[in-house]
Amino acid sequence: MTSTDQVLTLQSADQPGIVHRITGAIVECGGNITELQQFSSTDTLRFFTRIQVTGARGLTDAAAALAEELDAEVSVDQVGRPMRTLILASKAGHCLNQLLYRQQTGQLPIEVTGVLANHPDLAEMAGFYGVDFRHQPIPTPEDKDVFEALVREAVAERDVELVVLARYMQIVSPQLCEELAGRAINIHHSFLPGFKGANPYRQAHARGVKVIGATAHFVTPDLDEGPIIEQNVQPVTHQHTWQDLRSVGEDVESRTVTEAVRLYAQHRVFLDGNRTVIFP
Amino acid sequence: MTSTDQVLTLQSADQPGIVHRITGAIVECGGNITELQQFSSTDTLRFFTRIQVTGARGLTDAAAALAEELDAEVSVDQVGRPMRTLILASKAGHCLNQLLYRQQTGQLPIEVTGVLANHPDLAEMAGFYGVDFRHQPIPTPEDKDVFEALVREAVAERDVELVVLARYMQIVSPQLCEELAGRAINIHHSFLPGFKGANPYRQAHARGVKVIGATAHFVTPDLDEGPIIEQNVQPVTHQHTWQDLRSVGEDVESRTVTEAVRLYAQHRVFLDGNRTVIFP
Amino acid sequence: MTSTDQVLTLQSADQPGIVHRITGAIVECGGNITELQQFSSTDTLRFFTRIQVTGARGLTDAAAALAEELDAEVSVDQVGRPMRTLILASKAGHCLNQLLYRQQTGQLPIEVTGVLANHPDLAEMAGFYGVDFRHQPIPTPEDKDVFEALVREAVAERDVELVVLARYMQIVSPQLCEELAGRAINIHHSFLPGFKGANPYRQAHARGVKVIGATAHFVTPDLDEGPIIEQNVQPVTHQHTWQDLRSVGEDVESRTVTEAVRLYAQHRVFLDGNRTVIFP
Amino acid sequence: MTSTDQVLTLQSADQPGIVHRITGAIVECGGNITELQQFSSTDTLRFFTRIQVTGARGLTDAAAALAEELDAEVSVDQVGRPMRTLILASKAGHCLNQLLYRQQTGQLPIEVTGVLANHPDLAEMAGFYGVDFRHQPIPTPEDKDVFEALVREAVAERDVELVVLARYMQIVSPQLCEELAGRAINIHHSFLPGFKGANPYRQAHARGVKVIGATAHFVTPDLDEGPIIEQNVQPVTHQHTWQDLRSVGEDVESRTVTEAVRLYAQHRVFLDGNRTVIFP
Repeated sequence: MTSTDQVLTLQSADQPGIVHRITGAIVECGGNITELQQFSSTDTLRFFTRIQVTGARGLTDAAAALAEELDAEVSVDQVGRPMRTLILASKAGHCLNQLLYRQQTGQLPIEVTGVLANHPDLAEMAGFYGVDFRHQPIPTPEDKDVFEALVREAVAERDVELVVLARYMQIVSPQLCEELAGRAINIHHSFLPGFKGANPYRQAHARGVKVIGATAHFVTPDLDEGPIIEQNVQPVTHQHTWQDLRSVGEDVESRTVTEAVRLYAQHRVFLDGNRTVIFP
Repeated sequence: MTSTDQVLTLQSADQPGIVHRITGAIVECGGNITELQQFSSTDTLRFFTRIQVTGARGLTDAAAALAEELDAEVSVDQVGRPMRTLILASKAGHCLNQLLYRQQTGQLPIEVTGVLANHPDLAEMAGFYGVDFRHQPIPTPEDKDVFEALVREAVAERDVELVVLARYMQIVSPQLCEELAGRAINIHHSFLPGFKGANPYRQAHARGVKVIGATAHFVTPDLDEGPIIEQNVQPVTHQHTWQDLRSVGEDVESRTVTEAVRLYAQHRVFLDGNRTVIFP
Repeated sequence: MTSTDQVLTLQSADQPGIVHRITGAIVECGGNITELQQFSSTDTLRFFTRIQVTGARGLTDAAAALAEELDAEVSVDQVGRPMRTLILASKAGHCLNQLLYRQQTGQLPIEVTGVLANHPDLAEMAGFYGVDFRHQPIPTPEDKDVFEALVREAVAERDVELVVLARYMQIVSPQLCEELAGRAINIHHSFLPGFKGANPYRQAHARGVKVIGATAHFVTPDLDEGPIIEQNVQPVTHQHTWQDLRSVGEDVESRTVTEAVRLYAQHRVFLDGNRTVIFP
Repeated sequence: MTSTDQVLTLQSADQPGIVHRITGAIVECGGNITELQQFSSTDTLRFFTRIQVTGARGLTDAAAALAEELDAEVSVDQVGRPMRTLILASKAGHCLNQLLYRQQTGQLPIEVTGVLANHPDLAEMAGFYGVDFRHQPIPTPEDKDVFEALVREAVAERDVELVVLARYMQIVSPQLCEELAGRAINIHHSFLPGFKGANPYRQAHARGVKVIGATAHFVTPDLDEGPIIEQNVQPVTHQHTWQDLRSVGEDVESRTVTEAVRLYAQHRVFLDGNRTVIFP
């Protein structure tokens, strides 16, 4: 992969000959396709594609023309360009630690523009990785408005492309959910069956579940019900206390959110109604 | 393992010195312990143990004495003795096929006393494995009473120890659930999150889940909410149609119910309130 | 999916504009692409694609023209058409059982033209599923020639497209390996680390492995070293005897070979030197 | 779990009545057993047990008496006491990061007495977690003697109980292996099939493996062949470059070594010849 490698994504209503037209545009740019994935949703009749191209000139203009011609959403990016990412957090550091470590070792193509938290606990961890940390407590509902104003500000100032809720333990306002639609990822525990309410690990323990999971999904006003990006599980036994379950859960959560962020940052995630299309 | 190998299970209120007393009884019988697992539930304050013994004489009597002394539930069995098992089914054969195949090849210590179904479709499969098959349709609620009377009869006549609902697509009456409490195992699909109502695979598809699971649990009047014995999952993608999800689900279901039956038939499953203790 | 759905596969040297040319041919046939996957191997500089098309007319002729123009290997098939499959077996039935059951329930698009075995044990199982069974013992090396002649005959007579070695415990002659290159799939156990020689499960037990796996691969003269199609593993513990390991192994083997056959029968498997490209 | 909870481990030749004698000693100490696991190896005829006890007085003396009487190896420890652990490293930080993070959040009962590395790269990471870091390069074979002398010194000075080779990329001398026998854990990648020699990820890629694994094992003079403690795998596809495989491998490695260290630090790992007995 050299610096001339580009990734083109496109989604639109499905229509005959669409791949032919897109690849035609690439040919005209002198580009060679190194990776192409495509999916036509029979549920929504939408078409999705992700194409990696090498050696193309003028691809951005060509994509803009395609967008108009096909009434499509398109994007063109350099392969491997770090995506500008804002992380929201509270006290728990397991997801933040995994994201920052993987980013630092070059395995996660994100540039963390900052960490914004409603507790001060993770300041040192952010500092160790050289990431800007800001702390804004939320003791009252009014403070949440202040916090969310800071989110908006941080997104605008640094032109943030992705917001990750890395165990940010607050409900996001419907207004902010809408503003960040399709570019905010949340992680939460998952169980078979599901549990609502406080301390789900206690409930999962009381129910005697044999697997603990985690789900990374897009943030929507429907709490914990957004389109699913990635899910993983880990087996557990009757010997696990509820604290053990939480510990296992944190491990699954950090792996799962990191994988979801990788997929998103590489333009491999598409929204298809309430589902996602993932080109892994 | 020789024919003199025995398995002793015991559960009771937890009390000081209990393992010492049980193993003392085994020593007096001249038995040597080859496998011992024990668990003290901090939730229910119950004690559970499963002990494999070789060379013991008079273990059944010793166990009866222990039961009285410790106010415990005990059982003594030959290791490897096939457990008498009745299977309830409807149309789908994936679980039945796996159970019968594994039983035939000597990997599942059960003796299938019969298959009782509300549809005739699986008669041939049962016949191939030399298992008695009986068909009793359930077009009306009254017919369910007839069917359940046949279940009771089949259980009584052959002294059935385990009833497996191998995709038996009927709701079991609360009365029968109670009669079979702790010795009837059901299998059903599991999703993250969970879905209620008709065609859950369509719902899971609409929701875009990334894993499909199955849960084997004890039958209780609370539909699909009995104590969990075994759970497994399989990853899926946006490319899976809901029919594909069902196909994956059937694979997970048949593996999961077979493993649950193996654990039960080897006396490795204990009820601890609404949870299970599994000594694998 | 209706009967007019077709699947086109193509592989050739990678070259600029190739997707554009292929999709152009599909447009000319009036076809609409419902699924497209493509991969350019940076190791071998080969290009691979699998395209599902609906509503195309004259696709076979168009594909033949493409084959000539691009110096490519192409195939066009009806989506869902059962692939003519010959199964070789010995005594163990776990893989055969899974393949036949899945085929019968419509989840595996193969038509089993026959089972050819060097032991008689599986005759009844084949009979139950209405599949032709032929038994040819191999007590001496000469008998292997006889057996392999029967394989050739069975392949020729029924125009067999896929040969599955479902725990066929004989070494295939280099000559037959070559004749069946790219259309014969074998399944064998896999361990971390690997073991050679007799009774690998005893060795795996002696080594105390914590996972047991299975590998489905193309048959090549290098025994058990052909290009890998599918791999799966299952955790085990110190409590498993080597017989238990074998039982777990059989479970993984039957799942793995079935999945490999499904992928192949749906034209999702491509050879890329000593590797495979899989479009799942 | 209170501070009076203790864990007793014992291994010896298997002998009749052994569990009875051990539990008798616990009863005499006024202890109540909260968790007991036991295994009799039919390969080596050794007996292993791990017992958690609450409320016992004089357990250490009782255990010493048992050791003499049964010719056994015993240990008694406080439940949850952090085990003094020395970590050896080179340049790669994925395993070190996971170990230190989990230790800091209280999920891994170890006290890291220091990190000793043959490269300076991980000094900052150790510093962030407040752990002593020492760097000793190994450009020549003689330097390895110097390095290993530092290991011995670090082990002796702080009475180290566990040495973890967290991607320490040097071969440990047979002499040191023997000195640390049974208390040094190594982590390395694992593949199906296995690969020897330089850059195994390149080889695994060339071979087209579909799963990548990791094995945590005891260090022995037989390089990478010590008794296995924990193994895990992760699926991969033809799209993964060898660098991607390495990235996946690092993820599996860090999870696997962390789990192995947790098991060891909680006295759940026993050596049984070339195998391990794990009481999870």
